[in-house]
Amino acid sequence: MSLEAPSERARVTPGDIALLTDLYQLTMLQAYWREDMNGEAVFSLFVRRLPHQRNFLVAAGLDEALRCLETLHFSEAALAFLGQRPEFSADFLAWLRDLRFTGQVRAMPEGTVLFASEPILEVEASLPEAQLAETILMNQIHLQTMLASKAARVVLAAQGRTVVDFGLRRMHGIDAGLKAARAFHIAGVNATSNVLAGAVYGVPIAGTMAHSYVQAHPTEADAFRAFVELYPDTVLLVDTYDTLDGVRSVVDLARELGPAFRVRAIRLDSGDIGKLARESRQLLDDAGLDAVRIFASGGLNEHTIERLLAEGAPIDGFGVGTSMGTSSDAPSLDIAYKLTEYAGTGRLKLSPGKSLLPGRKQVYRMERNGRMVADVIGRDDEDLPGRPLLVDVMKVGRRIAAGRVPLDQSRAHAAAQLRALPPGIRTLEPADPAYPVDFSTALKEAGERAAQRATTS
Amino acid sequence: MSLEAPSERARVTPGDIALLTDLYQLTMLQAYWREDMNGEAVFSLFVRRLPHQRNFLVAAGLDEALRCLETLHFSEAALAFLGQRPEFSADFLAWLRDLRFTGQVRAMPEGTVLFASEPILEVEASLPEAQLAETILMNQIHLQTMLASKAARVVLAAQGRTVVDFGLRRMHGIDAGLKAARAFHIAGVNATSNVLAGAVYGVPIAGTMAHSYVQAHPTEADAFRAFVELYPDTVLLVDTYDTLDGVRSVVDLARELGPAFRVRAIRLDSGDIGKLARESRQLLDDAGLDAVRIFASGGLNEHTIERLLAEGAPIDGFGVGTSMGTSSDAPSLDIAYKLTEYAGTGRLKLSPGKSLLPGRKQVYRMERNGRMVADVIGRDDEDLPGRPLLVDVMKVGRRIAAGRVPLDQSRAHAAAQLRALPPGIRTLEPADPAYPVDFSTALKEAGERAAQRATTS
Repeated sequence: MSLEAPSERARVTPGDIALLTDLYQLTMLQAYWREDMNGEAVFSLFVRRLPHQRNFLVAAGLDEALRCLETLHFSEAALAFLGQRPEFSADFLAWLRDLRFTGQVRAMPEGTVLFASEPILEVEASLPEAQLAETILMNQIHLQTMLASKAARVVLAAQGRTVVDFGLRRMHGIDAGLKAARAFHIAGVNATSNVLAGAVYGVPIAGTMAHSYVQAHPTEADAFRAFVELYPDTVLLVDTYDTLDGVRSVVDLARELGPAFRVRAIRLDSGDIGKLARESRQLLDDAGLDAVRIFASGGLNEHTIERLLAEGAPIDGFGVGTSMGTSSDAPSLDIAYKLTEYAGTGRLKLSPGKSLLPGRKQVYRMERNGRMVADVIGRDDEDLPGRPLLVDVMKVGRRIAAGRVPLDQSRAHAAAQLRALPPGIRTLEPADPAYPVDFSTALKEAGERAAQRATTS
Repeated sequence: MSLEAPSERARVTPGDIALLTDLYQLTMLQAYWREDMNGEAVFSLFVRRLPHQRNFLVAAGLDEALRCLETLHFSEAALAFLGQRPEFSADFLAWLRDLRFTGQVRAMPEGTVLFASEPILEVEASLPEAQLAETILMNQIHLQTMLASKAARVVLAAQGRTVVDFGLRRMHGIDAGLKAARAFHIAGVNATSNVLAGAVYGVPIAGTMAHSYVQAHPTEADAFRAFVELYPDTVLLVDTYDTLDGVRSVVDLARELGPAFRVRAIRLDSGDIGKLARESRQLLDDAGLDAVRIFASGGLNEHTIERLLAEGAPIDGFGVGTSMGTSSDAPSLDIAYKLTEYAGTGRLKLSPGKSLLPGRKQVYRMERNGRMVADVIGRDDEDLPGRPLLVDVMKVGRRIAAGRVPLDQSRAHAAAQLRALPPGIRTLEPADPAYPVDFSTALKEAGERAAQRATTS
């Protein structure tokens, strides 16, 4: 246990995110400061390998990452906490008090489709500033990119049907819950149950009713009648006791209310969803309620959605929760943030399975007839065919126009990117062959030169 | 898209967590308010089924859950946002402005081992208050319980060796990063790299050095020398270029510095860790550096740790990141929060695979010779053998003493609970047979009575 008194500790709040970093960032920073290592560094943020279950990723989280860089500073409480540690000198902490991020960022716009090894963003700043950015940049870009990439699969599987995010209760905490809804919106999800995401990001919000509402009333029919009186065009949850009995209660309510009946949909949340959807559709149609839609939820993911639609289940919309909200089949990406240049010299790593090519990079994407064909990762100063994906978003610690993109523009960009995917990559199954990504000759040669320097010096 | 102007939206902040809820909670709340359904409700929070990869869970997150209940209120900005929605009336929002949580909570203390179907906590409050608590209680208890349960496996696998949390960069966002370190501390993890967790919770913090520090120096040996000058008892990362060459640089540095050499450990982060640990140990021992420990990291989890130790790898400590930080093999629990009683009458659900027994519950744990033997889930008013696990933690919306447990006390409780696990349950492999958990006769009879009421009414 650290020894500081509780009263000292209490002053640092969970919102003091300059401290949301790995301790070694701060010890390295003090070393850089002591050694006068203030030269310009280039760090590249990328995903080493795609998870087996992902043929592509969708970039997201840049807006929050840039906000973190713009506002990065150490509060007096944070400095007081560090001052109680044995590692840090008062002189260093005085320097840290004035530290701000004043570097450059080039990045893929949110919504861009990307692949393994491709830089999602590159930071160019003094070594301490670029180093300090590591943990929070990785944490935030990882979160939203992972979630947008999962959601894109769900959206593709739903083939244009409504998809609503129901995952807040089992997402990993408050920040994940909030930012998931944002990442999902970029990826094409239609709405979220998360009210805060509606208020903070303007993401459309939606909701139906819970089992507890039905349970708290004397009968299911009583619950339906009361809810519809208040919300005439609501969605009624029919599976609390027996699903088809629940649908019959909806039919009875329609007879009772006549033209005042405006219920928009029923929701199925358990059991054999495909079979129940067909039987419910039949009951509704027989009663002339063909305008009442069927909404399904309960443990759904892209595979169950694809299967339900393949077998012709008459489902009009999907509520998707835990699987999408935790990216359950790939709950992390092998994301890295690596030094590739310092003081004008390319830097590399040779660690087995984690090697790295040196220098500022660019990703060049070749397209043909509106379809993406192949990517080449090259040096930033090369003139290669294809559209460059990394654009300037921050200069001298401040965003420029390309770093302030409205959310709906990112959403439109993602939709266009998904349309441009080759069919073999868009599928839910592992793509074979994978999307072609190569390194340019100049980049490979730079790697060989740097490796010689590192191993012969 | 919702239609409110950006200037209105901007006033709600991400910290406005009364809105971190599902929209249906608020629409149901308005319905309860309209219908005068203010009767006393009992909700039970539990995990329906354990993931295949978990033989037990460790309860965590109660402290934060209670803090959320104590501080729950709607800000003026939140009310203004809701006022722009078509669903909500001004009268309801005026009532919502004054809403506070004034109910009771019974819960398992943090660190308690638990199993499927056992209530982790029960809320007794007016129906609207108890309903509104659902999303945030689930989100927070789920997060920390899932992570503490994963970490307990890693701690058991490490057999007393040091375990340090390195997962912040790939955890799901800021809140997960912060609370993971807390949950891990309860489960027995020794330290975290997360500085903010040290400042906010007093969790011990630790760190070594990153590859970028080595890369930024002309040679690895230069980097080691500079870092050791500032931090004499540090841990040196040796795998940036070639691991055994890195160890030889450490040996050279020890010769150069003589008695001033106080490096505590080397860190291996890639390659065949077991083989490299043995070869590194040999190089260090041959140089008389048997006091220098070996610390391993890089994609480790409880299984790789168990295997490394089983094959005798001379490793003294483990840095565990993504796998523990995302509970990657079970990134969610099938957690539920269900109405079991309203206005004095037991309530149940009959949905396939999601059925529910009615009424206030208690978990009774039988122990023999310091080992847990079997649990019975009964009614709260039964007098059954065994120790009751749920205790009062909150009365009339305020914590009582048992709801304010110091973190180290929860950690000690978890350690005692893990020691009391039957050997077949403590293993990493799926337990066969599973730990015995039964429902009491009185509870099952109450379920039958409630089912008759629900289906015949």
